[in-house]
Amino acid sequence: MDISQAIYARRSVRKFTADAVQREQLEELVRLGAAAPSATNRKPWVFIAVDEPQQLKRLKDRLPLGRYNAPAAILVCADMRRTHPLAREFWIQDCAAALQNILLGAVGMGLGGVWVGIHPVGLFIRGIKKAFGLPEHIAPLGVALLGHPVDVPPARTQWEPSMLLWQRYSQSVGDDEPPAQMGGE
Amino acid sequence: MDISQAIYARRSVRKFTADAVQREQLEELVRLGAAAPSATNRKPWVFIAVDEPQQLKRLKDRLPLGRYNAPAAILVCADMRRTHPLAREFWIQDCAAALQNILLGAVGMGLGGVWVGIHPVGLFIRGIKKAFGLPEHIAPLGVALLGHPVDVPPARTQWEPSMLLWQRYSQSVGDDEPPAQMGGE
Repeated sequence: MDISQAIYARRSVRKFTADAVQREQLEELVRLGAAAPSATNRKPWVFIAVDEPQQLKRLKDRLPLGRYNAPAAILVCADMRRTHPLAREFWIQDCAAALQNILLGAVGMGLGGVWVGIHPVGLFIRGIKKAFGLPEHIAPLGVALLGHPVDVPPARTQWEPSMLLWQRYSQSVGDDEPPAQMGGE
Repeated sequence: MDISQAIYARRSVRKFTADAVQREQLEELVRLGAAAPSATNRKPWVFIAVDEPQQLKRLKDRLPLGRYNAPAAILVCADMRRTHPLAREFWIQDCAAALQNILLGAVGMGLGGVWVGIHPVGLFIRGIKKAFGLPEHIAPLGVALLGHPVDVPPARTQWEPSMLLWQRYSQSVGDDEPPAQMGGE
């Protein structure tokens, strides 16, 4: 499956068969996650791969919006000690790009998944930190629930014409520079 | 190029040939961006495709960390009116996933690009809002500078063994639920 096909084929899958996800597949998905770009190249990612039923249940219990029966999950976090002191908040984008890579990589393996958000919801963050023993400096962004889809939804984009503009949003574009001198004596 | 190859092949490209990016390619990249998932399926994206030299110069002038000579760019924004009132901050993740799709899609077209961050740096946000005429409710996340790479860097992951843990971060895992009753009379 080529890259643009995979991007269109990536749909949120919430119903999974009982088939396991192989640990080698989870490892490969983490390698794909860590191929994302990161701000000032700090690579702050920490991935926690989960396939033990008890930990999957803990995950479900802490995320009311992610109560699906998935045989595996990858929790995407940042080690805040590795972020740039002047650009700490970019960890959210670094982890989001990694999570998207994981979901796309899953499509290529015939798996499906769904992105369940954690940050910035305080209740979810606290629950997940406790359930996974995360120390203060490890910030959870979100989790990819993964498995073999019961149904494969059709590929699609959600693009609408109103989402695309050319060159600028409106004509009232400003410049910080002063206008060129008009000469004159 | 299959999806995992493309994910590994996506490298930050900052030097571009003088060849133009076709408008059809920019449109296709926006459709790929809008195939990303979004929190509570709000699809808040607004994409501004740029290939006019004057607007590309404005972009460069406002982003000191993105002063590369790219023939095209896609600015990824959110229309905050479309976000969920209880989950507004997820727009950052929605836009980051879309931007990653765009960079991956570019690889599939033989293009290269680099992610230049805008949010949450106030100076960059103000400059870009002015340069693109963005109203209050349009929030810029970042920009993909795009073009034909002078050199194609080798595929790679940035994965290190310390980035992957299994099941939990530490053994000190807590449960909110009380422990199961041990019987007794």
